[in-house]
Amino acid sequence: MQKQLIDTLVSITGSDSVLVGDLAEPYCSDWRGRYSGSALAVVFPADTGQVAEVVKLCAARRIAIVPQGGNTSLCGASVPLSTQAGEGQIVLNLSRMNRIRGIDPANYTMTVEAGCKLADVRAAAETSNRFFPLGLTATQKFCEIGGNLSTNAGGINVLRYGNARDLVLGLEVVLPDGRIWNGLRSLRKDNSGYDLKHLFMGAEGTLGIITAAVLKLFPRPQTEATACVAVRDPAVAVALLAHLRANCGDRISAFEIISRSSLDLVFKHIPETREPFTDKHGWIVITQLADVLSAPLDGALHEALRSFGAGIAEFDISPDKDHAERWWKLRKNISEAQKREGLSIKHDVSVPVSRIAEFISRADAELQQAFPGIRIVAFGHMGDGNIHYNISMMDAKQNQTFIAQQEAAVNKLVYAVVRELNGSISAEHGVGQLKRATLREHKDPLELELMRTIKQALDPHGLMNPGKVV
Amino acid sequence: MQKQLIDTLVSITGSDSVLVGDLAEPYCSDWRGRYSGSALAVVFPADTGQVAEVVKLCAARRIAIVPQGGNTSLCGASVPLSTQAGEGQIVLNLSRMNRIRGIDPANYTMTVEAGCKLADVRAAAETSNRFFPLGLTATQKFCEIGGNLSTNAGGINVLRYGNARDLVLGLEVVLPDGRIWNGLRSLRKDNSGYDLKHLFMGAEGTLGIITAAVLKLFPRPQTEATACVAVRDPAVAVALLAHLRANCGDRISAFEIISRSSLDLVFKHIPETREPFTDKHGWIVITQLADVLSAPLDGALHEALRSFGAGIAEFDISPDKDHAERWWKLRKNISEAQKREGLSIKHDVSVPVSRIAEFISRADAELQQAFPGIRIVAFGHMGDGNIHYNISMMDAKQNQTFIAQQEAAVNKLVYAVVRELNGSISAEHGVGQLKRATLREHKDPLELELMRTIKQALDPHGLMNPGKVV
Repeated sequence: MQKQLIDTLVSITGSDSVLVGDLAEPYCSDWRGRYSGSALAVVFPADTGQVAEVVKLCAARRIAIVPQGGNTSLCGASVPLSTQAGEGQIVLNLSRMNRIRGIDPANYTMTVEAGCKLADVRAAAETSNRFFPLGLTATQKFCEIGGNLSTNAGGINVLRYGNARDLVLGLEVVLPDGRIWNGLRSLRKDNSGYDLKHLFMGAEGTLGIITAAVLKLFPRPQTEATACVAVRDPAVAVALLAHLRANCGDRISAFEIISRSSLDLVFKHIPETREPFTDKHGWIVITQLADVLSAPLDGALHEALRSFGAGIAEFDISPDKDHAERWWKLRKNISEAQKREGLSIKHDVSVPVSRIAEFISRADAELQQAFPGIRIVAFGHMGDGNIHYNISMMDAKQNQTFIAQQEAAVNKLVYAVVRELNGSISAEHGVGQLKRATLREHKDPLELELMRTIKQALDPHGLMNPGKVV
Repeated sequence: MQKQLIDTLVSITGSDSVLVGDLAEPYCSDWRGRYSGSALAVVFPADTGQVAEVVKLCAARRIAIVPQGGNTSLCGASVPLSTQAGEGQIVLNLSRMNRIRGIDPANYTMTVEAGCKLADVRAAAETSNRFFPLGLTATQKFCEIGGNLSTNAGGINVLRYGNARDLVLGLEVVLPDGRIWNGLRSLRKDNSGYDLKHLFMGAEGTLGIITAAVLKLFPRPQTEATACVAVRDPAVAVALLAHLRANCGDRISAFEIISRSSLDLVFKHIPETREPFTDKHGWIVITQLADVLSAPLDGALHEALRSFGAGIAEFDISPDKDHAERWWKLRKNISEAQKREGLSIKHDVSVPVSRIAEFISRADAELQQAFPGIRIVAFGHMGDGNIHYNISMMDAKQNQTFIAQQEAAVNKLVYAVVRELNGSISAEHGVGQLKRATLREHKDPLELELMRTIKQALDPHGLMNPGKVV
């Protein structure tokens, strides 16, 4: 039976585009090597018609499908489950579908296929003097736009431009039965029925396969200003953000907070990084303004910071881009520094922006009480209420035991605080297989039931990315 | 049976909050008097718990429910169908649920109940020095936020802030079985499962009843600049908008186009209105910039218009707010002027912004050929690709015959052009009962099937606002 399946897949996509055995393996593990499964085959369709044929074939034979883009999920969303042999799934990789179908500068939109790399989408927009704001500095050369939309990716510019779903006007989706829904509209307003596109975005391929999208574009920023601000504590940072929004408005394109522990790890592991100020401070904020007007923004940023009042220890506005880049280097290298330091228990949580300080102080206090001596590395997209909150022991040996024995207890404690503050246990990285069980514990049962109702209605045989999300 | 139902409703909401017979009638017709139905009762629950109890009662007895807010729908969405006696429905009016539950200035959010009037929501935001951008100048004193969200209302600031759905972070919804989904999160990022809120918004009450919402707030604009621009034709206006976005960015908060025929109607019927320029022009644009910085915007607007090049006949920047208001008066009174002139065949369509000129020229040409001598009144939210496109005969008597005999033919012709340009037959007014049949003709059958699948999954007995949308 497997041979027949492979033959049929080959007849759809060509023999170069179906991998089995050892050749398939790299596509069955995630890039961090944490999740591994097996697949009957990995298939690389060249266009939407081929995707539809593959899905129809699988639907008829009740073979499950794992849609895959750049395979950069942090939650194991884009690799097969480690099933027993025989419980076959196929991986449907969209990387060959990498055409920019069109750019409409006057409509500020572009139509792209799912397999376009995010960096290529951004570059294509620039050729038309437009800006596509989704930015994932660590992975944008590898991740693909279909995956970005399926996981509703976030990143550093959400504060100003929204999450991935907010950047989409239309979708083309291959449904679980293999039919193609052409929702590739490029309209700013359309109230002719239910909004189906939002269902498929953030569903991580469990309701259908996004094969193309119409993306919103924006004018290219012409000028920017960056400040590094030492704040007394996260509560000051919360108030500062509200003040900056009131005084600088939509110009604020980033507002990131970094704890002392995060900075120390960066200084320890990343060459050519150094304290942004002469004095050491407990918390720093990096914030950026950008504008399409070419008039300098430094004055407005300076005035907004100056007028804030108590709580800012000191601040500095970068005289040039290189100087700003040195600050950004601190932020962008926290993940790498942590990796070099060793394992940690990671959380990607969100709470209302106004409750970030409360989240940090409560979670810190409860964790320090339960696990004396732990190190807490907190940093992230404060402008979105999204904190990366990672826990480890300073001593490497102790740390190994700690993680092995206490991960569940740490998660439980952190997620309890998140829940009390009406937050989310997954702000931007999604659910995948990593957080599926956790979701069942922490999400409102009625909401889970609604999700399952939708899943059952659209994918009654459960063939789309099974074992993920719902 | 009906008496028993009324008694039970009264026991839930109190006797003052259940209307029957003559008292119920005003709630069974729309404000323009075009749609009229009858209801077993009109019930006014005071809180979400009461809504849930009423819905549970109706679910158990298979009684259909028409959710109603300010009843300002232009499509008959919020009144019962004119059914035969006995096929009873109830109207569930949310106007008593008009509490602002809370404002969180640091999070830039507010939590409001469905029955809050839009104008009150905007005013409440201002008391916290925040701005809620949804603006429907004609109806905001009457329409309610629950209805605005259920219909994904548009209005004049969509260009900058998006449609109603883009202004929502969380929802509370009473489901068709009477259970309450508490999705009242106020998070900027949340990737913990399917995005359910977008299903209920724009569904016009056919999937559940929105009882409360968390709304996004924005900094209050401090300064604005308004220009009136005479352009050669709509194609110039399209190019001008792209140029202004590139040069003024997010500051553009409105970009409205007005045809000569629209202006002439306003001058004829609305006192104290006059030509914006000495010369008469075929098309004018009114555009507005706004900013939270207090520095004047006139210079930036002037420079952007000056640098545009050919196609602008003349332009003027308002020296003050009163002067700008005189221009806005032209735009805001087009509907009123049309009403005074007589009936017309109205369309609320959208196409990609880049294709507006093509839409207008093609539809104009085909209509003039098919119906020589007609008057076409075209105007609207050009920045959103949303044109209000209305057709009548100049002569009142001829016009009556024309509308009676040709409405279907006119619609068919206009919608065919919309369809070829991949547009929408309902940009912002929704579907309701008015466009339900039209939707079936013009929408992709697969998309209609998906909508019905969702409807069937969430409302299997078809009790929520039957006969609307799907």
